[in-house]
Amino acid sequence: MPLGDKVGWEKSESRYCGVETEFNEDIPQLLSYNISSGGFDFVVAPLMDPTYRPSLVGKDTGRSFVLPFAGSDLVLSPSQWSSHVVGKISSWIDLDSEDETLRKDSETTLNQEIAWANHLSLQACLLPCPKGASCANYARCVNQILQGLNSMQLWLRIPLMKTEQDSMDENSSNLIDSWELWNSFRLLCEHHSQLAIALDVLSSLPSVNSLGRWFGESVRAAIIHTDSFLTNARGYPCLSKRHQKLVTGFFDHSVQVVICGKLVHSSPKASSNVVANNFDNNVESVQGHPLRLYLDYVGFLFQKMDPLPEQERFELGYRDFLQSPLQPLMDNLEAQTYETFEKDSVKYIQYQRAISKALLDRVPDESSITTVLMVVGAGRGPLVRASLQAAEETGRKLKVYAVEKNPNAVVTLHSLVKLEGWEDIVTIISCDMRHWDAPEKADILVSELLGSFGDNELSPECLDGAQRFLKQDGISIPSSYTSFIQPVTASKLYNDVKSHKDLVHFETAYVVKLHNIARLAPSQPVFTFTHPNYTSKRSNQRYKKLQFEIANDAGSALVHGFAGYFDATLYKDVHLGIEPSTATPNMFSWFAIFFPLRTPVCIQPGSPLEVHFWRCCGASKVWYEWSVTSPSPTAVHNSNGRSYWVGL
Amino acid sequence: MPLGDKVGWEKSESRYCGVETEFNEDIPQLLSYNISSGGFDFVVAPLMDPTYRPSLVGKDTGRSFVLPFAGSDLVLSPSQWSSHVVGKISSWIDLDSEDETLRKDSETTLNQEIAWANHLSLQACLLPCPKGASCANYARCVNQILQGLNSMQLWLRIPLMKTEQDSMDENSSNLIDSWELWNSFRLLCEHHSQLAIALDVLSSLPSVNSLGRWFGESVRAAIIHTDSFLTNARGYPCLSKRHQKLVTGFFDHSVQVVICGKLVHSSPKASSNVVANNFDNNVESVQGHPLRLYLDYVGFLFQKMDPLPEQERFELGYRDFLQSPLQPLMDNLEAQTYETFEKDSVKYIQYQRAISKALLDRVPDESSITTVLMVVGAGRGPLVRASLQAAEETGRKLKVYAVEKNPNAVVTLHSLVKLEGWEDIVTIISCDMRHWDAPEKADILVSELLGSFGDNELSPECLDGAQRFLKQDGISIPSSYTSFIQPVTASKLYNDVKSHKDLVHFETAYVVKLHNIARLAPSQPVFTFTHPNYTSKRSNQRYKKLQFEIANDAGSALVHGFAGYFDATLYKDVHLGIEPSTATPNMFSWFAIFFPLRTPVCIQPGSPLEVHFWRCCGASKVWYEWSVTSPSPTAVHNSNGRSYWVGL
Repeated sequence: MPLGDKVGWEKSESRYCGVETEFNEDIPQLLSYNISSGGFDFVVAPLMDPTYRPSLVGKDTGRSFVLPFAGSDLVLSPSQWSSHVVGKISSWIDLDSEDETLRKDSETTLNQEIAWANHLSLQACLLPCPKGASCANYARCVNQILQGLNSMQLWLRIPLMKTEQDSMDENSSNLIDSWELWNSFRLLCEHHSQLAIALDVLSSLPSVNSLGRWFGESVRAAIIHTDSFLTNARGYPCLSKRHQKLVTGFFDHSVQVVICGKLVHSSPKASSNVVANNFDNNVESVQGHPLRLYLDYVGFLFQKMDPLPEQERFELGYRDFLQSPLQPLMDNLEAQTYETFEKDSVKYIQYQRAISKALLDRVPDESSITTVLMVVGAGRGPLVRASLQAAEETGRKLKVYAVEKNPNAVVTLHSLVKLEGWEDIVTIISCDMRHWDAPEKADILVSELLGSFGDNELSPECLDGAQRFLKQDGISIPSSYTSFIQPVTASKLYNDVKSHKDLVHFETAYVVKLHNIARLAPSQPVFTFTHPNYTSKRSNQRYKKLQFEIANDAGSALVHGFAGYFDATLYKDVHLGIEPSTATPNMFSWFAIFFPLRTPVCIQPGSPLEVHFWRCCGASKVWYEWSVTSPSPTAVHNSNGRSYWVGL
Repeated sequence: MPLGDKVGWEKSESRYCGVETEFNEDIPQLLSYNISSGGFDFVVAPLMDPTYRPSLVGKDTGRSFVLPFAGSDLVLSPSQWSSHVVGKISSWIDLDSEDETLRKDSETTLNQEIAWANHLSLQACLLPCPKGASCANYARCVNQILQGLNSMQLWLRIPLMKTEQDSMDENSSNLIDSWELWNSFRLLCEHHSQLAIALDVLSSLPSVNSLGRWFGESVRAAIIHTDSFLTNARGYPCLSKRHQKLVTGFFDHSVQVVICGKLVHSSPKASSNVVANNFDNNVESVQGHPLRLYLDYVGFLFQKMDPLPEQERFELGYRDFLQSPLQPLMDNLEAQTYETFEKDSVKYIQYQRAISKALLDRVPDESSITTVLMVVGAGRGPLVRASLQAAEETGRKLKVYAVEKNPNAVVTLHSLVKLEGWEDIVTIISCDMRHWDAPEKADILVSELLGSFGDNELSPECLDGAQRFLKQDGISIPSSYTSFIQPVTASKLYNDVKSHKDLVHFETAYVVKLHNIARLAPSQPVFTFTHPNYTSKRSNQRYKKLQFEIANDAGSALVHGFAGYFDATLYKDVHLGIEPSTATPNMFSWFAIFFPLRTPVCIQPGSPLEVHFWRCCGASKVWYEWSVTSPSPTAVHNSNGRSYWVGL
């Protein structure tokens, strides 16, 4: 019984709640108690008798010795195992102990348990948290296991904890940050995609900035201890506001909730019976499962969530999915692509507002002047329509040229003009704007050539080519645009890039609906282009050096790359963009862009991240290069556009 | 006229001396003056008029404009250009200037000059030192150039400088360390193999530890300014003892010397004429080249060097050349390999000493006991001979079993025994020692199964298998062996590994005659094996965590990997090994081993380098895994022996 049934699925990516149990040899009974009766979706259960130690097994036991596993694949079918049980690896193991016997016992047991879990096709195993600050041998062993694993995931248990030093010093360093432990472990395991995190949610939470980092990591489970629940006025368990927010954040990020611990809240009803101490013996009480109150509360939190807006629901499938940017200059877009983008009414409303303002500024109220407006890159005509609506709205006369290089779109344009009866006003030009020999000059040049990173679909080059036929005092809409970047943790994206096992994919920028990421610092402007541009030695080459600072209370974080955005000024105060802090609401034409780093960079508060971005122009292509120089220098990415470029 | 002619070549890898010159349009005259008359081997000369700035060239100049290069490929043949001229790139360029015009002029000029040098097939160009602390744009541009370069090298000019903070604080940080500049530049350029260093040698030198780092880097030229010379009692230029040592170090490491600057020493003779001020006008004085005194002194230093010992001369071709380690257990060695190793008399003298001592300890003087000695892995018999010589030397009676698994070597063994008349003493057993059913037990087990890293040719596994037929109180020679590692800078080795462009080569250990490396900290023991080994649960798996500290006055350094060695105790105080501080002199059977790092790690004094080494054993193979966890964690190398292993 998932938290939200059919009704709820559209609320989030995750809707299951599990429970952590003790070792029980009778697995069918364990499932019946916790799932069928208890209402949980799955159990996190030990696979092996916790008293077992390989070194204590006598040599004489010989061949008849059977490992003390809980149940076999006969008492429970493989499909029951895999859908209802997450294997909990013996929590006593300590692979970095100074005690060599314990270390070797731990390695043997870990290998035996994982091999068994793999045999049962479990979906995941929960690995106990490393015992000390050092985890190299544990990670080496897990890394070996990961090389030969089928599809099973390994969830490393990490307490959600960051102790801050009480100090007057602003640069106070952190004493313990469990993220560091995770980071070491996963770097040792080369970011293996099957290594994930189970966060132990404790009663006190780190700062918001510190929590934020985890949303860029591969967190698969949040284990909430009953101790972390508060008691509400009626005696029921509940969570603090901050915990509630965190849990709904988890629901939204494919993180399963698991309840662990003992019943510490006896509800008014329950306390009148003799329930509280029963469940230690795994005896089902008349009241049902002792942790049922916690499950109900988690279910309540889930049901309380707002359903996803329609647009978000539509885009669910695109979340964190890497796409190659369009090359609309080199390639011709398809009808379906035009269709999709034309649906973005918000965008065209902004254009219409900009054009209206420009017409009002340019043409006096009583004037009968006809304004020459050219839509360059007219596509199937949405900007022609917006222009004509602006003219109507402002009572200005317009002569429109619709210039379009894609001959297929030109066919549609002709039908549109005929259908709408615009023949007297609109002239269609089937030509690349860079080569069109215009019969007259334009008052207003309207274009929508922007990519997710602003200039990355070569708007600057196109508009430079078109400005020949703009009057000296003419207006370009947009009048300028700026790209932005910010450093992000994005382990899912990084792993997807890495899975190609080549350099090319690490030196490519991707269009992506960012979701499972942590934004580590506010975004900053990179390149700005202004139109028209009459400076004498104009060049569209750009170089920008940027410094980012991570929030002081965040702790260290790993930068997998940079999220890129743009903001465009269409005309005066009318803008359009996807930069998070100023993004145009409800506009869906652009996802963000993602520039990966070949080697992720670890950054600390107080030590800035220095980044360089170049926009380079060659005879037939334009490309970006990027590199980090601080805290430590990385290779310059995409030298000479060897991996990724946009064709002119 | 190289510094040392035929006589000298065997002294070092480098024997040329160049001179840095001013811009001169008349290149033939420049060469005649400096080389034919002056005695230098090559010139480092500007290629372009230093007053040229692209932004100052009027647009109207149009197509007739010719770049102001010094000479063309008509005044000097391409072969003259390439053998006598190193191109000096305009020193005014500053690609990281805040001044955009200067920045763009610099980029244009750099590209033009390198393209020209490439056209002339110059062997190298000298790039001016980055002007400020930031060099990202310069590096980006050079990196672009490197992608398309033929075989020409680019030498980045770096002053040999490290300023130390005067402070009572032990952790005093360094103010300026030019190595940091180089490190940033080469990391941005991805360790490109054609990017090298020209060190500007100044009058004051950094500490010995700091200098040492450069011998692991790709230094191609040392530019010594005339200001850095002292004046000897007779008024001639000379260098300080430390400078002398540095220069002879350069000779020994393929570093060309270049003299630059003006004549600041007038020799007693010269000063009586009117020479000193003449050469500014490039007028050849009656005394010849004004810098001749400096050249003569450099030549004197070269001639003063000791010739290379024969063994070193023999090994010149192996310097920094990566070899895959032997697999003598899986493969059978060839006759040539036996032949080479048998020539190492030092090794067999040590074995003979050890066997003699063991015989004296084990058998009383007047006893007539016959000692059973088994040579396991007898090869073609050198240890049989050493054993018999030890018996003769000590007057002890011996019965020898020579066990050898390679049937080809057994053939040779039989001839040897016949030839020497050892038939009564020596029994040849053609069998793998791990499977031999011995007719009696041995008093002494002698073996030479050690690899460069001690246990890496599976001596532990072989001797564990053989100890069945060793008496309870029997002796194994060697009785123990220990491997050692130390972190090294080794850019040549790193680039050779990288050139394969795969993971496998980065996860392989190589046997190599280390030369062009910097040893960054004393070596430390890793794994020790002792024979015989009667502990109950013996295992040859090992795990070791090590911490290295770089010398406080060294400055930062880049660790490309670890040099590995071994030391073996043959018997009591008789040892054998290649660990640098205790290496057996004149023994040549083993080069060192090199474990590369996939991503080089930058280390700083005061911040230890933490390294983990594992020896892992599977059913059919043994392998090492290694990783760095501090200052920052790296991936565990060679997980499950996926890239490199030794077959059982």
